Amino acid sequence: METFEFPVRVRYHEVDAQGVVFNAWYLAWFDEAMTEFLEARGLTYRTMLDAGYDVQLVHTEIDWRAGVGWGEDVAVAVSTARLGRTSFALDFQVRSTDAAGNPSVTCDCRTVYVVIAVDGSGKQEVPQLIRDALGEPRPLQPLP
Amino acid sequence: METFEFPVRVRYHEVDAQGVVFNAWYLAWFDEAMTEFLEARGLTYRTMLDAGYDVQLVHTEIDWRAGVGWGEDVAVAVSTARLGRTSFALDFQVRSTDAAGNPSVTCDCRTVYVVIAVDGSGKQEVPQLIRDALGEPRPLQPLP
Amino acid sequence: METFEFPVRVRYHEVDAQGVVFNAWYLAWFDEAMTEFLEARGLTYRTMLDAGYDVQLVHTEIDWRAGVGWGEDVAVAVSTARLGRTSFALDFQVRSTDAAGNPSVTCDCRTVYVVIAVDGSGKQEVPQLIRDALGEPRPLQPLP
Amino acid sequence: METFEFPVRVRYHEVDAQGVVFNAWYLAWFDEAMTEFLEARGLTYRTMLDAGYDVQLVHTEIDWRAGVGWGEDVAVAVSTARLGRTSFALDFQVRSTDAAGNPSVTCDCRTVYVVIAVDGSGKQEVPQLIRDALGEPRPLQPLP
Repeated sequence: METFEFPVRVRYHEVDAQGVVFNAWYLAWFDEAMTEFLEARGLTYRTMLDAGYDVQLVHTEIDWRAGVGWGEDVAVAVSTARLGRTSFALDFQVRSTDAAGNPSVTCDCRTVYVVIAVDGSGKQEVPQLIRDALGEPRPLQPLP
Repeated sequence: METFEFPVRVRYHEVDAQGVVFNAWYLAWFDEAMTEFLEARGLTYRTMLDAGYDVQLVHTEIDWRAGVGWGEDVAVAVSTARLGRTSFALDFQVRSTDAAGNPSVTCDCRTVYVVIAVDGSGKQEVPQLIRDALGEPRPLQPLP
Repeated sequence: METFEFPVRVRYHEVDAQGVVFNAWYLAWFDEAMTEFLEARGLTYRTMLDAGYDVQLVHTEIDWRAGVGWGEDVAVAVSTARLGRTSFALDFQVRSTDAAGNPSVTCDCRTVYVVIAVDGSGKQEVPQLIRDALGEPRPLQPLP
Repeated sequence: METFEFPVRVRYHEVDAQGVVFNAWYLAWFDEAMTEFLEARGLTYRTMLDAGYDVQLVHTEIDWRAGVGWGEDVAVAVSTARLGRTSFALDFQVRSTDAAGNPSVTCDCRTVYVVIAVDGSGKQEVPQLIRDALGEPRPLQPLP
């Protein structure tokens, strides 16, 4: 199975005075990529909320290998890294292709989410509809 | 009475590849300055919401005369421009001081807000608690 | 000729506590739509910069008629509104389609840009490569 | 010596539909806090750039224990965590105080920066002016 990829077009205001995308925007990209990943696997965020569930970030780790400039088209790859009782982890990779067509990974990220109830009752076991969407873990980075 | 001023420290990520604050951040500054303006006049946003009211932007007009660079400390001046039945307008000015101590206005803005009910019942007459906070109109720019 | 439309997918972080896209993000959308508009007409931002020109916002006016929620797909229409000696204006419209397929305009904007030299020498006459991309003015809103 | 703290006032647009600050804004806060930290220790970002040095993020790790709501005043604590040959790490903590005056840490972060030359010649040894500003490492979180 192909790894899910979400195309990202760098927005002008995401590039800072250093000429590359400012670090905080990566988290915004990953957030959007997470939503698209679940949706591509049949679970819209709306459906999840309507079923009474939401997710919260509890941990994220990012490694930057290179910057991304304006006008550079990149893709964010997403894959399930780990599936626990009340939490799960997703792996993200920012993938770029240079002028000669050579692909490279400019950034790696792993984020851990906990499932919570929208009624405020706190942490929940990962429900079947989220498990179905996440599927079998296939980490993009080695697990610790 | 002195015009209310809200100090703004430019954030690194607000500066784009042109070396000046990206246009969209001005609206974020004005939003924050609006909240601080009302609070300085005795009305916290929380109190307004608790009383059943919220405000929505319906119109904004911005004139930029000069850019603002990183490391430049500026202030956003706020003043009531107009007070209507269900809407009001605020004037904003971005004020900068150069190395020689000369003040200048780098940006003017007028924004029109309508008062709405938080219960979803729509437009409301501007309630007394908001009128009291807005006070007598003292536009910073000529009215049209 | 069809009006140029740039599709926008609302990002989760663009929606504020009121449940609709925060006002400042509209300017970020319009900025991106401007770039795409010029590119669709044969002028990339990179080409413009390499030719020694850049553009600066000097004025913007926005009217909001309705909010845009998360999960709502909208398009930003862009059209040349006015073409002057050293400046030009673009019109923007945020267009939404409801569940029944009815289109509506939720937001109108007109923005005035001045052409500047990238070498710091200031305002420039609108060069032919920008004139060609802008084409004949076809305002989306009545001119003042 | 007291740990350096940088006060942060949550901006309205930083709060998302979940009612808490969106995750990406933490990185923007930490970026600003880093600048203020160095400046409080005698090194402005401008001076660093003028001396030919800049810093780049290569790694960041964030743990969220609780969300931060709008109207909540928090402080970002910053401390030098590690000082290497061409890189250094800073620790960040988001500190909140509840209505009863009880302090808590809602978020921990460690970020690794490499020192680069502004002339594009790449990685550099951490120069004395940055070493002086960073001082003796005093991690806020245990080192791995």
